[in-house]
Amino acid sequence: MTPRLSRRTFLTTAGALGAIAAGATACSTEATKRSTSNVVDFHGEHQAGITTKQQDHLHFASFDVITEDREKLQDLLKEWTEIARRMCRGELAEPGAMEDTGQAQVPDDSGEAYDLPASNLTVTVGFGPSLFDDRFGFKRVRPKELTPLPHFSGDLTRKEISNGDLCVQACADNPQVAVHAVRNLARVGAGIVAVRWSQLGFGHASATTRDQQTPRNLFGFKDGTNNIKAEDQETLDQYVWVRDADSWMDGGTYLIARRIRMLIENWDRQVLREQEGTFGREKRSGAPLGASDEFDPLPLESKDERGEPLVPLDAHSRLASPAENAGQHMLRRAYNFTDGSDGFGHLDAGLFFIAMVAAPSESFIPIQSKLAKNDRLNEYVRYESSSIFAIPPGLRDEQDYFGRTLFEARA
Amino acid sequence: MTPRLSRRTFLTTAGALGAIAAGATACSTEATKRSTSNVVDFHGEHQAGITTKQQDHLHFASFDVITEDREKLQDLLKEWTEIARRMCRGELAEPGAMEDTGQAQVPDDSGEAYDLPASNLTVTVGFGPSLFDDRFGFKRVRPKELTPLPHFSGDLTRKEISNGDLCVQACADNPQVAVHAVRNLARVGAGIVAVRWSQLGFGHASATTRDQQTPRNLFGFKDGTNNIKAEDQETLDQYVWVRDADSWMDGGTYLIARRIRMLIENWDRQVLREQEGTFGREKRSGAPLGASDEFDPLPLESKDERGEPLVPLDAHSRLASPAENAGQHMLRRAYNFTDGSDGFGHLDAGLFFIAMVAAPSESFIPIQSKLAKNDRLNEYVRYESSSIFAIPPGLRDEQDYFGRTLFEARA
Repeated sequence: MTPRLSRRTFLTTAGALGAIAAGATACSTEATKRSTSNVVDFHGEHQAGITTKQQDHLHFASFDVITEDREKLQDLLKEWTEIARRMCRGELAEPGAMEDTGQAQVPDDSGEAYDLPASNLTVTVGFGPSLFDDRFGFKRVRPKELTPLPHFSGDLTRKEISNGDLCVQACADNPQVAVHAVRNLARVGAGIVAVRWSQLGFGHASATTRDQQTPRNLFGFKDGTNNIKAEDQETLDQYVWVRDADSWMDGGTYLIARRIRMLIENWDRQVLREQEGTFGREKRSGAPLGASDEFDPLPLESKDERGEPLVPLDAHSRLASPAENAGQHMLRRAYNFTDGSDGFGHLDAGLFFIAMVAAPSESFIPIQSKLAKNDRLNEYVRYESSSIFAIPPGLRDEQDYFGRTLFEARA
Repeated sequence: MTPRLSRRTFLTTAGALGAIAAGATACSTEATKRSTSNVVDFHGEHQAGITTKQQDHLHFASFDVITEDREKLQDLLKEWTEIARRMCRGELAEPGAMEDTGQAQVPDDSGEAYDLPASNLTVTVGFGPSLFDDRFGFKRVRPKELTPLPHFSGDLTRKEISNGDLCVQACADNPQVAVHAVRNLARVGAGIVAVRWSQLGFGHASATTRDQQTPRNLFGFKDGTNNIKAEDQETLDQYVWVRDADSWMDGGTYLIARRIRMLIENWDRQVLREQEGTFGREKRSGAPLGASDEFDPLPLESKDERGEPLVPLDAHSRLASPAENAGQHMLRRAYNFTDGSDGFGHLDAGLFFIAMVAAPSESFIPIQSKLAKNDRLNEYVRYESSSIFAIPPGLRDEQDYFGRTLFEARA
């Protein structure tokens, strides 16, 4: 048996009187230490899972609310908070859910993460534009920025995998832990919410802290070199966090999610020069063309001996750069995906793009409008879904719940 | 930057003269040590990825051969062998594929695993029944056991995600490494093979060595407690490896793959007693009902005070047990999956069942026929695909290639 810290170990050691039993104490110090080392703080000014060091795996789910009862929705969000808080500590959704004494009861945890550690699980909850219709009395407090994204030139988005009333972004270093989290929230939501769409992701395709190596997307390029990092407090305050003391969104952000199918077979037939020109970066080092280090600034003005820009005018990194977008930044938290095949002999693979921004109308929307028209990368991708969610502020204490500020908001 | 062993580090340290350069030598000992610690031996009597300690992630792909040229197929299998051998060592598919000197060339590696270690990658190749038609002259050497699986009672299998001419099972402790392996084999196969279907899996749902803790499936139960382990040489020889000195399959095995969709929302509404009765085991410990330890034998004869069997007559573990199946064993290598939602408000999740057996007609087929009729678990699952592939023996040396014994076989 491989010794591993698990929900079981946690319960044994951190539980109650049982923990005093001989044998259980031997490993309790180490167990406790390790249990907190892979636990992300659930409370704070902002929700976890935004500037949290990006975990290896994603399970993102969108839900339709199938009741029109505001109170039922509010109760569910309170229950989700309780459950998420425990799961993020590496515990069962409900204490005692695996006890034999409950033989005649429906288990309050599905059990597949019972032996697994917390794995840095974060659960981030958001609200889609459709929640702000006539059903729940939220119409008058819909933030101006929470508007369905426009159709961008070339978009081939499918309605059934876009948007939704609620979203849950579960990230963890173990996919089973992320899947367990979404599944148990869906489980307790039966009759109140229904899964609209969900997406698994791996190989985090952005870095969100300075100690993370920049990962590679499925085009083989480093992705998100110039991402906003958790350490960039000023940039976060300016471009990620909503700052409006009068709004229920104060301290929140807007999450944009787009499923970007990569036409990898087309890409794999391009010569290296074309691939590097498309990104405007060297494939191996990630350095901008004409520079030598990954983190060098893009030499947007430099030209080669024939007078051509070193970073092509239609290169993705140029078009998306803050320098070409009035200084606008987006926090990205993308994941790679591979979901079987497309039925035409190709892998269905790509990038599940996630960005968090304070004002989509000033950052994501104008930037994407430009990219949609000019980005050379468009030739190799297909935008299949497009969603926006308002991510309310963080949970301030043990009594707080997902969406409290929304339920308390007055128009 | 987090220091990590990567394909890049490997090339730097194990490369050629460049490795002698000052600075590179400092970490070479540790790098070499770590590089071999996550490398699975590519050569041997049997292919890797069968009794190999089960890795955390799976990417399984089935291919249709789209040429009728036997030599082209043979050349591709030789190329696959070369590439797979390198990737399993943690190297690029082709040395130098990321070099700047190749600007005018199509890169010989897609690059997304460049910074990642070997991650215990294994690549296992097999042949489906359809390869043994008139196209390649294999008709007369089709093994009797390589016959499309029968329809089992209740099967709702879809043709487009079943079978195929070739299969590749890539397993690794990092999903990006497994995806990279399949993708690069597909890349070099353009024009010769086309992806028919593919499946990603996580949270290995079987243990294949004695030092692995039994993992849990998405029903929350330990899965594969009584699996054949790599250490069970005698059982492997009897039930897993084909032993026939006159056959090109000598030392090979048959791989059976079935996508088992779990109706998790139905399952999650059952009381613990019903869940445990369905498996015939305790949910928490994995012990057979009426026993106390996970590895205790199933007390098939024991009855409760009312004369009812402790392990119900329709319990999955009873019906699948060797004791009830003339001693037959199957090596299982299943993975959990979650592939978005089903469009009806539910997660599309389940178990991608993989078994390896010497004689499907004596083991898998009779056992599944019985399970299909009587297993209480059927109420909670849906069999969506069904495939069989012949896995030829292992690669004996650096000159060997996938399928050599088949190409050399005479009827």
